Amino acid sequence: MAALARKGAKKTGQKRPRAIGAERLSLTLTENSGRALFAQIREHVRDLIARGLLVPGMRLPPVRALARQLGVNQITVARAYRELADSGLIEGRRGGGSFIRASGNHSALSGPPDATAPPLLAERLFELARAPGVIAFTSNYPEVDEATVAEFRDCISFAASEKLDACFRYDPPLGRPELRRQIQIYLKDQAIDAGLDNVMVTSGAQQAIDLSVRTLVAPGSPVIVEQPAYYGAINALRSAHARILEVPLEHDGMNLEILKRHLVRHQARFIYTNPTFQNPTGVTTSEHKRRELLTLARQFGAVILEDDHSPELRFAGTAVPAIRALADENDLVLYARGFGKVFLPGLRLGYLIVPDSLRRKLLMAKANTDLHSNSFMQEAAARYLAGRSHPDLLERLRDKYGARQRLLYNSLVAGMPAGTTVSQPEGGLSVWLTLPEGADVSELYFRAVRRGVAFVSGEVFYGSPSDSRSLRVSFGLNRPEELHEGVERLCSVVKDLLNRRSARTPAMMM
Amino acid sequence: MAALARKGAKKTGQKRPRAIGAERLSLTLTENSGRALFAQIREHVRDLIARGLLVPGMRLPPVRALARQLGVNQITVARAYRELADSGLIEGRRGGGSFIRASGNHSALSGPPDATAPPLLAERLFELARAPGVIAFTSNYPEVDEATVAEFRDCISFAASEKLDACFRYDPPLGRPELRRQIQIYLKDQAIDAGLDNVMVTSGAQQAIDLSVRTLVAPGSPVIVEQPAYYGAINALRSAHARILEVPLEHDGMNLEILKRHLVRHQARFIYTNPTFQNPTGVTTSEHKRRELLTLARQFGAVILEDDHSPELRFAGTAVPAIRALADENDLVLYARGFGKVFLPGLRLGYLIVPDSLRRKLLMAKANTDLHSNSFMQEAAARYLAGRSHPDLLERLRDKYGARQRLLYNSLVAGMPAGTTVSQPEGGLSVWLTLPEGADVSELYFRAVRRGVAFVSGEVFYGSPSDSRSLRVSFGLNRPEELHEGVERLCSVVKDLLNRRSARTPAMMM
Repeated sequence: MAALARKGAKKTGQKRPRAIGAERLSLTLTENSGRALFAQIREHVRDLIARGLLVPGMRLPPVRALARQLGVNQITVARAYRELADSGLIEGRRGGGSFIRASGNHSALSGPPDATAPPLLAERLFELARAPGVIAFTSNYPEVDEATVAEFRDCISFAASEKLDACFRYDPPLGRPELRRQIQIYLKDQAIDAGLDNVMVTSGAQQAIDLSVRTLVAPGSPVIVEQPAYYGAINALRSAHARILEVPLEHDGMNLEILKRHLVRHQARFIYTNPTFQNPTGVTTSEHKRRELLTLARQFGAVILEDDHSPELRFAGTAVPAIRALADENDLVLYARGFGKVFLPGLRLGYLIVPDSLRRKLLMAKANTDLHSNSFMQEAAARYLAGRSHPDLLERLRDKYGARQRLLYNSLVAGMPAGTTVSQPEGGLSVWLTLPEGADVSELYFRAVRRGVAFVSGEVFYGSPSDSRSLRVSFGLNRPEELHEGVERLCSVVKDLLNRRSARTPAMMM
Repeated sequence: MAALARKGAKKTGQKRPRAIGAERLSLTLTENSGRALFAQIREHVRDLIARGLLVPGMRLPPVRALARQLGVNQITVARAYRELADSGLIEGRRGGGSFIRASGNHSALSGPPDATAPPLLAERLFELARAPGVIAFTSNYPEVDEATVAEFRDCISFAASEKLDACFRYDPPLGRPELRRQIQIYLKDQAIDAGLDNVMVTSGAQQAIDLSVRTLVAPGSPVIVEQPAYYGAINALRSAHARILEVPLEHDGMNLEILKRHLVRHQARFIYTNPTFQNPTGVTTSEHKRRELLTLARQFGAVILEDDHSPELRFAGTAVPAIRALADENDLVLYARGFGKVFLPGLRLGYLIVPDSLRRKLLMAKANTDLHSNSFMQEAAARYLAGRSHPDLLERLRDKYGARQRLLYNSLVAGMPAGTTVSQPEGGLSVWLTLPEGADVSELYFRAVRRGVAFVSGEVFYGSPSDSRSLRVSFGLNRPEELHEGVERLCSVVKDLLNRRSARTPAMMM
């Protein structure tokens, strides 16, 4: 790419909404891209609004300031602002300044074709995971377990012969009683006490997260997340137009001082956390910090959404109780899980444990979203859980994936250049790898794919524009014989990259 | 109820957002309800904000005006406003006036327990549909067809033996190729030409609607709907914080003059319509109006979301082409269908036909919502459609339900008091019944249930507070022998109600 980058991006932390500086826009212009500069500015602002990063009432930087910051003519910026105003997205106010419009015609967001939008992460991952010859470290879920498939086939036969007639009708949104009962029993083993009517069946953990967010987070409201955090949660927050407040993750969980500041200063009342084998870093929040978090949530009347994808997949250390297990039933803790990350990937079944006080709202959201989850699969899954073969399965999975994790970790540590850090989480199906300072990872992904290895770029796990130098390397679907070869390819791409460090290429636009 | 109603509600049509009068709040206070008047005002405003009916930047009526309107002391209104301001929902501005806050701390909406919220419509319907002895005219979907269940059982067996292994993984959001191919073939019979990659599998029609709305409607944006309209769509719009603009439905579709006014004055760029056997009224939009609608949408660059639940269930008249069949592939027409209303109720599978220009956004929304729909059921449904037994099934259903509709319609016409109107749609599983002017239907529903008959109250089909005197009477699950008895009960409740007309009871709060 013959392009000249003018990087204005830097990490700005969280500023107050009504005083955004030019740097907040994190705008990178690309000359000679075939796209006029004013159009790049216009599209970037439009995109930030669409993603909820700029919310109604925010004031844009003055034309002069932004022009100086970007090193462009003021006329360029003024033209971008004028076109944004024409399409109803921003408005000039008496006394000066351009503001994101309160309501008005935001359909301008949806009008134009989006053929130029960046490719979907999901699409990219699926394409690559299946491209011949590419070793894809992208799957954070376990491979098909033959015994489980055989057993589940029996459960399907059972449901088909015994339950199918009763599945040809519309159900209440809460879910089938038999499945909820089995989930209740399963959770008791994990010290989680939930009433039968507090177990809400969802179409996977992603839906449990999405329902919670869209029900309890009003547009423009602040939400606290770990930094980095699961991109599925970040996307759900963006699509609810939340204001994302990130809290740096330490070796034992979030920095609670910073978290508390967000509670106080920004009046955030919703906290999303993934405390065990965090996706993507693998960090497990200590019991001490879990209790502190719960205390803070009580003190401020905040909701905690606990995403607990696979606490069973522990290879080392001691189990830490879920936040929900430490809470009492009146605490505003929502507990979200899917079946996919451990037992039955791809079935799109999961659940949300809800406190009484939020139950009704969440049920209404579930009804509005898809009425209820597939009844037949609920019956089959209930049958599977009732068979209680999963303790054996979990044992097998821990042995298998514990060994693979050690293999992957050791190869990475041995092969990566000095200055690279590799995490070794106590469980889960990913490790988190961070390249040395100064490494420009902007093209790493595409170079790696050309070399036949794929991973997930760190940037997608950030709620604000980031200069992450990290990669999530997931090994759920990689046979041991692939691990060596994949790591070798990855290490060689990284080494090449670090050697070329002097010849910097432009950063991608966020 | 020993209560005194002060009705301020009337239909206000659509006012401009920044100038709401006291009547816009449609507030009805109830004395002696055990609830202080200021608390009723506070909760009502809070509720309107939560439902997106009051959006940021709107100005509340002055304290004095609202107090006069409600016939209460100004101190009462002032206290309600003060508490709303304290919880961050509204703000006073210099120069006077109280405004809905732009962003800020709307988590106040989600903070308090909602034990006092009105019961979920869905819950109410399900409870009643199953209460012993109650004849429930509430189900707008067909009863289990034994032959279809038997055939679908075979499809499940096939999928379990041939496809199950390939279902234990995460899929791309678009859906399984085989199911999309079968949907494509099915639609060709209905003159709808869709590319394979424009068929997006969803978890039922409700999700197709919800995804479209949340992707293409920004908070506060205006959306045009029929008046009345399907409550599932209204709920999806509310949860996306849309501003709902209603267009009265005439015998041949929406009043296009009023629709055009919304396009011009309010710059609405999203139209939701259910043109065939409209839910709830049964109205079928004429081909002429469908073409006009398409022309208007082109002219204004508006998106049409066409909800087409069961065009196959036609008992009389001539089929009218879907709007999507009249459109070309570049038109911004989204076509939403579920399988449930005709073939396979309860499976939670449906689809959305998307134009190229909106495809990427909708796929991203699908991925954020639940990643993808259940793979196994997709394979079973593909197998079912490939069997092509549905032409026979449709023939059977048309005979069966055509006869039931005539029976229901004739009994209602014979038994209802003068002044009642009953629609006889050309198809679908509901009729729409409107009581004479002056009838107070506020307690009709509860009286009817006590008498052993249930229906769906008209008010839920309105986007703004309504004084609907209509009922949706659906006969999907009612055997012929039940129809007579159910109608008899309903007619006797209505007659009682009209005889008591003098002794008015208070209206319910919306």
